[in-house]
Amino acid sequence: MAVRAAVAGASGYAGGEVLRLLLAHPEVEIGALTGNSNAGQKLGGLQPHLLPLADRVLQETTAEVLAGHEVVFLALPHGQSAAVAEQLGPDVLVVDMGADFRLEDAADWERFYGSPHAGTWPYGLPELPGGRAALEGSKRIAVPGCYPTAVSLALFPAYAAGIAENEAVIVAASGTSGAGKAPKPHLLGSEVMGSMSPYGVGGGHRHTPEIVQNLSAAAGERVSVSFTPTLAPMSRGILATCSAKARPGVTAESVRAAYEKALADEPFVYLLPEGRWPATASVHGSNAVHIQVAYDESAGRIIAISAIDNLTKGTAGGAVQSMNIALGFHENTGLSTIGVAP
Amino acid sequence: MAVRAAVAGASGYAGGEVLRLLLAHPEVEIGALTGNSNAGQKLGGLQPHLLPLADRVLQETTAEVLAGHEVVFLALPHGQSAAVAEQLGPDVLVVDMGADFRLEDAADWERFYGSPHAGTWPYGLPELPGGRAALEGSKRIAVPGCYPTAVSLALFPAYAAGIAENEAVIVAASGTSGAGKAPKPHLLGSEVMGSMSPYGVGGGHRHTPEIVQNLSAAAGERVSVSFTPTLAPMSRGILATCSAKARPGVTAESVRAAYEKALADEPFVYLLPEGRWPATASVHGSNAVHIQVAYDESAGRIIAISAIDNLTKGTAGGAVQSMNIALGFHENTGLSTIGVAP
Amino acid sequence: MAVRAAVAGASGYAGGEVLRLLLAHPEVEIGALTGNSNAGQKLGGLQPHLLPLADRVLQETTAEVLAGHEVVFLALPHGQSAAVAEQLGPDVLVVDMGADFRLEDAADWERFYGSPHAGTWPYGLPELPGGRAALEGSKRIAVPGCYPTAVSLALFPAYAAGIAENEAVIVAASGTSGAGKAPKPHLLGSEVMGSMSPYGVGGGHRHTPEIVQNLSAAAGERVSVSFTPTLAPMSRGILATCSAKARPGVTAESVRAAYEKALADEPFVYLLPEGRWPATASVHGSNAVHIQVAYDESAGRIIAISAIDNLTKGTAGGAVQSMNIALGFHENTGLSTIGVAP
Amino acid sequence: MAVRAAVAGASGYAGGEVLRLLLAHPEVEIGALTGNSNAGQKLGGLQPHLLPLADRVLQETTAEVLAGHEVVFLALPHGQSAAVAEQLGPDVLVVDMGADFRLEDAADWERFYGSPHAGTWPYGLPELPGGRAALEGSKRIAVPGCYPTAVSLALFPAYAAGIAENEAVIVAASGTSGAGKAPKPHLLGSEVMGSMSPYGVGGGHRHTPEIVQNLSAAAGERVSVSFTPTLAPMSRGILATCSAKARPGVTAESVRAAYEKALADEPFVYLLPEGRWPATASVHGSNAVHIQVAYDESAGRIIAISAIDNLTKGTAGGAVQSMNIALGFHENTGLSTIGVAP
Repeated sequence: MAVRAAVAGASGYAGGEVLRLLLAHPEVEIGALTGNSNAGQKLGGLQPHLLPLADRVLQETTAEVLAGHEVVFLALPHGQSAAVAEQLGPDVLVVDMGADFRLEDAADWERFYGSPHAGTWPYGLPELPGGRAALEGSKRIAVPGCYPTAVSLALFPAYAAGIAENEAVIVAASGTSGAGKAPKPHLLGSEVMGSMSPYGVGGGHRHTPEIVQNLSAAAGERVSVSFTPTLAPMSRGILATCSAKARPGVTAESVRAAYEKALADEPFVYLLPEGRWPATASVHGSNAVHIQVAYDESAGRIIAISAIDNLTKGTAGGAVQSMNIALGFHENTGLSTIGVAP
Repeated sequence: MAVRAAVAGASGYAGGEVLRLLLAHPEVEIGALTGNSNAGQKLGGLQPHLLPLADRVLQETTAEVLAGHEVVFLALPHGQSAAVAEQLGPDVLVVDMGADFRLEDAADWERFYGSPHAGTWPYGLPELPGGRAALEGSKRIAVPGCYPTAVSLALFPAYAAGIAENEAVIVAASGTSGAGKAPKPHLLGSEVMGSMSPYGVGGGHRHTPEIVQNLSAAAGERVSVSFTPTLAPMSRGILATCSAKARPGVTAESVRAAYEKALADEPFVYLLPEGRWPATASVHGSNAVHIQVAYDESAGRIIAISAIDNLTKGTAGGAVQSMNIALGFHENTGLSTIGVAP
Repeated sequence: MAVRAAVAGASGYAGGEVLRLLLAHPEVEIGALTGNSNAGQKLGGLQPHLLPLADRVLQETTAEVLAGHEVVFLALPHGQSAAVAEQLGPDVLVVDMGADFRLEDAADWERFYGSPHAGTWPYGLPELPGGRAALEGSKRIAVPGCYPTAVSLALFPAYAAGIAENEAVIVAASGTSGAGKAPKPHLLGSEVMGSMSPYGVGGGHRHTPEIVQNLSAAAGERVSVSFTPTLAPMSRGILATCSAKARPGVTAESVRAAYEKALADEPFVYLLPEGRWPATASVHGSNAVHIQVAYDESAGRIIAISAIDNLTKGTAGGAVQSMNIALGFHENTGLSTIGVAP
Repeated sequence: MAVRAAVAGASGYAGGEVLRLLLAHPEVEIGALTGNSNAGQKLGGLQPHLLPLADRVLQETTAEVLAGHEVVFLALPHGQSAAVAEQLGPDVLVVDMGADFRLEDAADWERFYGSPHAGTWPYGLPELPGGRAALEGSKRIAVPGCYPTAVSLALFPAYAAGIAENEAVIVAASGTSGAGKAPKPHLLGSEVMGSMSPYGVGGGHRHTPEIVQNLSAAAGERVSVSFTPTLAPMSRGILATCSAKARPGVTAESVRAAYEKALADEPFVYLLPEGRWPATASVHGSNAVHIQVAYDESAGRIIAISAIDNLTKGTAGGAVQSMNIALGFHENTGLSTIGVAP
C-alpha cells in the first residue's frame, strides 16, 4: 500500500520537482499540497507541466492540512522549516529541502544565515561515506544544497583516498532555477540569457560551510575551500569544476583508481570513461551524476568535474532517494538515470 | 513477456528519443541498435544521456541485424526507409519515423521529395478521426511529421466541426532538434542562440502537403494552407499558431464547444482552461499536447495554438503511442503527460 | 554645437537603449537622467553596460530636472507621458517612447488602455508614406510600438501597392526585453529559456489597433488584422511573419516589384536578395530592418517577414531616427545598420 | 587619409568581427576580403549582419589580392598565417588573429600545436607591463587568444604587485563563437543550449602555455597554471574566474590597492566598484573588460574575475586596439566601451 506524501511549498521550483518525481513513484500517493501565497489556487496555473495535478487546489501550510501523511516534504524558504516540523509527529518522515538542518556547526549557521540554529538532521547524501546508514529508518532528513551535492560527490573520493591536500578550489555554474521562482530583476530572462556572472564570491555563498563540512568529513581534517558560484544562461543544471593540490606521489593512475573505487557501486553516480567529460544536458531531469577526473601533472592538481540537475539530484531527486532509503524502498524507486536531451 | 524492439538510426535525435522512451516502457525490451556512420561505436559517446545503454555497441543497419525483433523503429534519413522495410517480414511491426510513407498523394511526394513514392502506411496520429482504428493491429506505421502533429491537433477540431473556412494560416516555431544532428553552419549554437528566423517560406516546407492532407480529411474538402516554419533558440518544442477564417454564425462559445467535444477523451491532449495559453516548456520531454483556442471577433478568425515536444509527441512519443495501439497495449503505456520544467 | 538631451526613465530597457545610442551620437550631449524608483542611485549599478555613464546619478522626474534641455526622451510606463510632457515648453522636442500619443482614435485608446486619450502626436515611423514630412520640424514625436514597427514595415508596401486584400494575419516572436525590466514570474530566465509561448491572443494585444491604423492608412481602407504575439527565448529581436491574401492578378514578380519600389531608398530597410530570409541576430543592436517577401501561389497569400531589434529600431533607434529628422540632422546620424552577430 | 585594410578569412567569426569594427573606424578603409572556401560569394550571404558590405565579393587569399594594403588582418586557421605573412612586405602591418606568433617558447608551440614554430611577434595586449611600447611602430602583431586576454588582465595585477603565490587556478566559461564557425556536432545549438560542459581539461587547452607566459612575465618567475575552459550556452562572452593563493601579509585592502594601481589609467579595463561583479552581457559587442577582485580570507586566496567579449576585446577588438597603437592612432579610435545589453 502506498504511503501518502504531502508537499509544503508546492508552487515553487523545488516543490514542483518533487511532485514531478512523486507522480512517477509507485509507492507514493500524493496528498496535501500547500503554498501560503498561492493558497486557494489550482496547481494547473502554477505548475502547468504537472498535468495530472492540474485541478489540485493549494492549501495553507498548517498542521491540520499536513496531518495524516506518512511523509511530508518541506520546500519552504530557509528558516521556516523548523516551525512546521515541530508540529509534525515523530513518526512522520519529514524531508526538508531547505537549509535549516544541514549544518552541524551552529556558529556556521548563524554566520551565514543570521538566525538561531535549529539543529542538525541526518544528511541526505547517501553516496558519502556512512551516508546510507545515517538515513535508514530516520524520520528526519536534511536534503543537501545543490552545489554541495555536486561538489561533494566530485571531491569526496579524492579526500577519502587521501590523495588531495586540504585545500580545494571550486568554480561552479548553475542554471537559474537554483535561485528560485521569486521574481528579481537580475533573474529576468532578459538579464540572464547570453550572460555569465558570478555571485557570492570570496566565501560568501551559504553553501560554502556545507561544502567544507562534507569535504572535511571525508578527509578527516578541515579542508579549506574557495568556492565561486556563477549563474549560467540555462534553466537547470550544475557543472562543478573542482580541483585540489595533489599529495606527493599521486599519479594519473592512482587518481583514477581512487575514483573508481569510491564510485563503483553507486546507482546514480557515473564515472565517465576516460576521454569524455560531463555535460549538464546529459543529466537534465534525471537523478544521475556524471563525473570525470584528471590529474594535471604540470599544475600538480587533481581536477574533478561533476554535472547534475540542480532540481533533481541537487534537490528533489536527492530528497526522494533519501526517502526511499529511510522508508526501506529500493533506493532508485521512481528515479531515473536517463536525461532528457538534447 | 516483453516484445523486442530494434532501433535503426540510434545515434540521431529521433533514435535517441525513442530509446529514452523505450527504456521506460514495461512491455518492451531494447534489442539491436544500428547506425551506419557510427557502427562499432558505443552509444555512451553518442547519446550520453542514455546512461543504461552506455555500453551498447551500434551495428550496421542490415536485415540480419534487424531480424528477430517484433518491432523495428526506423529513424533514418528520408527516402531510406522503404529499402529497409521491405527486408522485414510482414509480421514485424515497422514504425517509420521518417517521411516516406506519410503522404497519400504520389504527386505530392514527388514534388516535395524528388524521388519515387514508396507508398502509404497507416498514419500514426491516433487523435484524428478514425486514427485509432487505422492503427489497431497494423504492422506498418508512418509516424507523422512534428509540425503536422502540432498543427493537425490544433486545427482538426475546427474543421471536423465545420466552423472554419477552408483556408488556414499557420506560423510555427520549432526548437533546433527538429533539424536533426547533422552539423550545418546555420544550426550552430552561435547562430541560433538569440535569433529567430524563418525557412521554407511560401509553401516550400515538406510538411505542407502533410498538413493539407490531414486538415482536408477532417474538413471533407481541400483546405488551403499557408505554412511558415521558424527556427527558435531552444532545443525542443513546437509552438504552432494556427488560424482560420470563421464560418458565418460562429461564436466564442461554439468554438470552445467544438474543441471540448473533439478533445474531451484524449489521453494526451489537454485543452487548457480559458485564460491560459500553452508554453512549450510545459510539455518538455512529455507526450502531452497543450492547446488553447480563441475566437477573434474583430478579425473574424479562429485562433488555435498548440505546444508539443517535437521529439516526443512530435516524433518518438507519437511512434510509441501508435505502437501501443498496434500491439494492443494500453495506449499510454510508457508515456507521460508530465513535462520537465522549468 | 550639440543639443542637450534628457532621458526620463533611464533605468529601464528603453531608457538604457536610448542612452546607448545617444552616447554615439555626435550632435547630442547627454543631460539629466531620471528614474523615480531609482533616484539617487548611480547608473553604473543599473545599466552596467553603459560604462561612460557609470558615475551619473539618477534624479527624480520633475519639470525642474528636465528643464534646460533641447530634447527630452520619455521612457515611462504607459499613461505617464502626458503629465510630464505638458510641463515641457513648446520649443522642447519631446520624444515619447511610450504608447500615449500613438493612436489617432480615442475610442481605441480607451478600449485598450482604459484611460482617457491624451492626444495624437506625429508618428515616428519615417518609412511610412508621408512619414518624414510629418516629423520635420515637429516638437512632439510618438515613437511607434516595437511590433507595429516590424509589422507595418513588412506589410505597408503590399497595401500601398494595392496588391493585398484588407485582411492580414500576423504572428510575431519577440525577445523578452520587449516586456520590460519590472520583474514578473513569467519573465524569469527559468521560465523563458527553452520555451515559446503566446500572449494577448485573439486581438487583445495593445499593439493591435496601432497596426490596424498603419496598415489602413497605407491601404486607404480599413484593414482587418489578426495579430498574435509570442515570447521567444532571447533578449532582443522581433521576427514578424505577416501575410495577406493576394488580390487577383498578383504574381511573384508584381509582389517583388511592389516591395522594391516601396523600400528602394530607405536607409535602414533592407529587402533581402531573393532566396535569403531575415534572422533577428543579423540586426541585433542595430537600427536595420531586414525584410523578405514571397508569394505563395498555392495558398494565394503574400508572405512578408521582417526582423528588427525591438529595442533599437523598435524603440530607441526609431526615436533617435525621428529626432534626427525633427531637428534637421542627417537621418542616420548616430545610427548603424550593422548588427552585432553572432 | 585612411589606411586601407584587407581581411583574410572574412567569412569566419573573427573576420566578421574585425570587419564590424573597421566599418566604424574613421581612419580605415576596408579593402580586399578573402576566404578560400567561399571565394566568389557575396559577403551578404555569409555575414548578413554586415549590411554595408553585403555586395562585396570574397576573393582567394593570395599575395596579389592582399597587395596594396597598409594593413592586413589574418583570421586564418592556426598554422596558416606564416605562409601568408611572409608574402607581405615588411612595410605592411600584419595583424595575426591566429595563434601562430603568440608563444615565445618553440617547445611549447610544438607540444600544443604539433607543427614547427613560426616565430614570435609583438604581443597585442597593451595593458600588460611594457605592452604598449612593444606595439608602437611595429609591423607585426600577434593578437592574444581570447582566454589569455581575459585571464591575464584579471591576474597580472596580482603578480605584478607580488601579492600572489606562483600557482593560479582558473576556470573560464566561454560563449560558443570562440569555437569558430566550422560546423561540428558538439557545437550544434541543440547540444549547447541548456548545457555547460568542460573541455581541454587537465592542462590540455592550447591557451594554457600562453597564460603561463603572460603571468610568468608579470610575476618575474614561472607561474604554475591550472586552466579549465568550459563551454557556456551563449554566443559571445568569457567569464574568467581566477584565483591564486595570497602571499603572507596580504589583506583585502592591499589586494584592492594593487588592482587600482595596475588598472587605473586603462581606457578599456574597468575595475568595478566594490560590491558589484562582472557579467558578460555588460561587455557584449564592446572592447571593455570588467574586473572585480576579492580576498577570501578563509581560503587565503585572491579571487579575480573578468568579463570580456571573446570576439571583441578577446580577438578583433584587441586587434584593432593594437593596430591603433602600431599606427599611431589614438588607442581607442573606432572602439567602444559600451556593451549591447540586455
